[in-house]
Amino acid sequence: MKITPKTLPGFMELLPQDQILFNEMKEKIQKNYEKYGFIPLDTPIIESAEILLAKAGGETEKQIYRFNKGENDLALRFDLTVPLAKYVAKNYNELTFPFRRYQIGKVYRGEKAQRGRFREFYQCDIDIIGDGELGIINDAELPSIIYTTFKELGFEKFKIRINNRKILNGIFEELNLKEKSVEVMRIIDKIAKIGNEAVKEELRKLEIEEKSIEKIMQFILIEGTTDEKLKAIEKLEIKNELFNLGVAELKEVIKNIRYFGIPENNFKIDYSIARGLDYYTGTVYETFFDDYEELGSVCSGGRYENLAENYTDKKLPGVGISIGLTRLFDQLNNLKLITSEEKSISKVLVISMCENDDGITLKTATELRKANINTQIYFEDKKIKAKFKYADKLQIPYVVIIGEDEIKTNTVTLKNMKTGEQETLKIEDVIKKIS
Amino acid sequence: MKITPKTLPGFMELLPQDQILFNEMKEKIQKNYEKYGFIPLDTPIIESAEILLAKAGGETEKQIYRFNKGENDLALRFDLTVPLAKYVAKNYNELTFPFRRYQIGKVYRGEKAQRGRFREFYQCDIDIIGDGELGIINDAELPSIIYTTFKELGFEKFKIRINNRKILNGIFEELNLKEKSVEVMRIIDKIAKIGNEAVKEELRKLEIEEKSIEKIMQFILIEGTTDEKLKAIEKLEIKNELFNLGVAELKEVIKNIRYFGIPENNFKIDYSIARGLDYYTGTVYETFFDDYEELGSVCSGGRYENLAENYTDKKLPGVGISIGLTRLFDQLNNLKLITSEEKSISKVLVISMCENDDGITLKTATELRKANINTQIYFEDKKIKAKFKYADKLQIPYVVIIGEDEIKTNTVTLKNMKTGEQETLKIEDVIKKIS
Repeated sequence: MKITPKTLPGFMELLPQDQILFNEMKEKIQKNYEKYGFIPLDTPIIESAEILLAKAGGETEKQIYRFNKGENDLALRFDLTVPLAKYVAKNYNELTFPFRRYQIGKVYRGEKAQRGRFREFYQCDIDIIGDGELGIINDAELPSIIYTTFKELGFEKFKIRINNRKILNGIFEELNLKEKSVEVMRIIDKIAKIGNEAVKEELRKLEIEEKSIEKIMQFILIEGTTDEKLKAIEKLEIKNELFNLGVAELKEVIKNIRYFGIPENNFKIDYSIARGLDYYTGTVYETFFDDYEELGSVCSGGRYENLAENYTDKKLPGVGISIGLTRLFDQLNNLKLITSEEKSISKVLVISMCENDDGITLKTATELRKANINTQIYFEDKKIKAKFKYADKLQIPYVVIIGEDEIKTNTVTLKNMKTGEQETLKIEDVIKKIS
Repeated sequence: MKITPKTLPGFMELLPQDQILFNEMKEKIQKNYEKYGFIPLDTPIIESAEILLAKAGGETEKQIYRFNKGENDLALRFDLTVPLAKYVAKNYNELTFPFRRYQIGKVYRGEKAQRGRFREFYQCDIDIIGDGELGIINDAELPSIIYTTFKELGFEKFKIRINNRKILNGIFEELNLKEKSVEVMRIIDKIAKIGNEAVKEELRKLEIEEKSIEKIMQFILIEGTTDEKLKAIEKLEIKNELFNLGVAELKEVIKNIRYFGIPENNFKIDYSIARGLDYYTGTVYETFFDDYEELGSVCSGGRYENLAENYTDKKLPGVGISIGLTRLFDQLNNLKLITSEEKSISKVLVISMCENDDGITLKTATELRKANINTQIYFEDKKIKAKFKYADKLQIPYVVIIGEDEIKTNTVTLKNMKTGEQETLKIEDVIKKIS
């Protein structure tokens, strides 16, 4: 009895052409992370459940893949941050700080199966971890990495939204709203939908004084250029220490972002970004495509106070970002926003026209490979038409043909599959031509 | 309460310097697979248990990580071949045959924890799958890939051992020993340990006729050069069809291996290789380091009749090889056989000597990165000595220093960390120098 070959729902499995595109994206992200001096890390996909769930709760705990093997209570990692925290705490004495690592790997969440949601997906993370402290200028380098990464992926029209959580927290502190901050944030979030007056009305229901409501409205209605927004925030005249520190940090980050050469079109201050209420403590980032805001943030992150507090007493502040590559690829592919000139791994398909050529075909392919040209040989005993069709289907750009005439004259025929052009050349000239 | 940060036994987790070396090996293998025109494939790590266990039994079933999530009976893949079989059966109509794919990914086996055994490990596989049939010359290309891969990894002294299972099976068929073949193989395997006479003695215990024992001994004692071994096998004068086909295939493979340019030192015929008794049906390979035979085979594989018979009626013959990278890396690392000139991801560390440099440091780093030079900036507010120590620890080969003099003259100072040499240069000249 045959078993029907199925792949589980929520698990991405691509056909070759898409896989090549996916890997191209993954490799570009990796190369760009390395360009900024981040070191690779590869942690196990399985960890002890105790480690992974040290902090987690709520949704995470429900979604996690957890199981026993023998006596061990195991789980699959649901992000790359918890394993990083474990790694840094475990290897603290062996690491050089600031520790800059990237990790590109699969993580697992048993989400409800629905279009665009994945249970297994790649995260592409970078984090910079300080030993005790970490300079604010690090917070300015991450947007530079986001910028060059998305440019490298072929995008121009996207915006990195930047905020500093100390500003929000300082305002709440100043207005004595710390305990209501979650609800206030939730109301503020609806402003685009329900409008200013309705927001005020809802805030009044929380028994917030009129003066505080005015401050909140002034704050969330700040608009203008980056510099105008920085000026406007100072004009609020909030004399809170945390708030002032947040504004100073944000100014420092903006100044250095400009030094890094990020165009004004590709970043903006967005005072409404919070990104969860207890993890991030300073700078926060989100990234949106200008023309596809509905995709949500395609790269997010921020500054946190203490990476590994569940595993060590060492204070390890950090700043990081993450790209959810599987979802991003799926979205971009659905929108037909991913293309590539070269969708083939092989640059050349070598085809022999003779029954017995004393190894000329294999020797030719070996020469091409030695010259670092990805080369496939068509070995099967098929009609010539089938051989060319194979090159066509795999989108291999060149075919090298070896027939009796070529063998006699110690040449090959090179066919450009796009233009149809053919020329007879020495192998050295083929190498020069297509290298 | 703090949780002790631990990694599970049997799961490799490397420190940065080793991780860089590991990734270098992985990337070299990948690039070499692509050089032969293999297409990347990335299948889920979790599959339905029914799919993964379609054929398995015995050890595999005991070792597999299997668990329930909701109503689903799930398991982690224990190799990359079963997922390939599922993939090809599932996507048969979308694929172009011969389908040449590589996959480099983690697989899971709950082995007993002991030194050198891993529960999570990378396999680096290539397979060529034919639709109904697949030419024997494919079997000659794989040794060529093994050869170039290990050369690329920096090894010279290794041997690919080649055999054809049809030869063994043909002999057993001819001598009417098919039912005893497992036991005969087991006895033959011991010849190095127990010697010829003891082997004969044990074969007699199986009630094998003296004439057959003579043939078996003649066969397993064949020695000499590759050509001598090919001649000797013909001299056995076994008139069995399967045997003759095996010999013809082996001769064809050896002829083409030579055309591919594999030196005689790097391959040999080994008539004793069987590699399990029911999966491989033709050519089989094993690869040993000349000076470290005790490591066992570091790259193995062979020809199989039918990849996906559990999932489809289509006949899909194939040939493939696999490198168990995690174990290989561990072994080579223990033997101190892995080194690398460049153990750093960053080529340059940029250090600023000024409090405020109007962004010159960030702009300089941006220039270097634009020129594709992996560059890290030292941001922390530490003494100059600490900054150089950082470059040293991370083995970053160059430091670019920006001080007040450099800013005035629009130059930077480049220090070669190996030689200690320092020169003051324009940034363009730094780029030229270290590119």
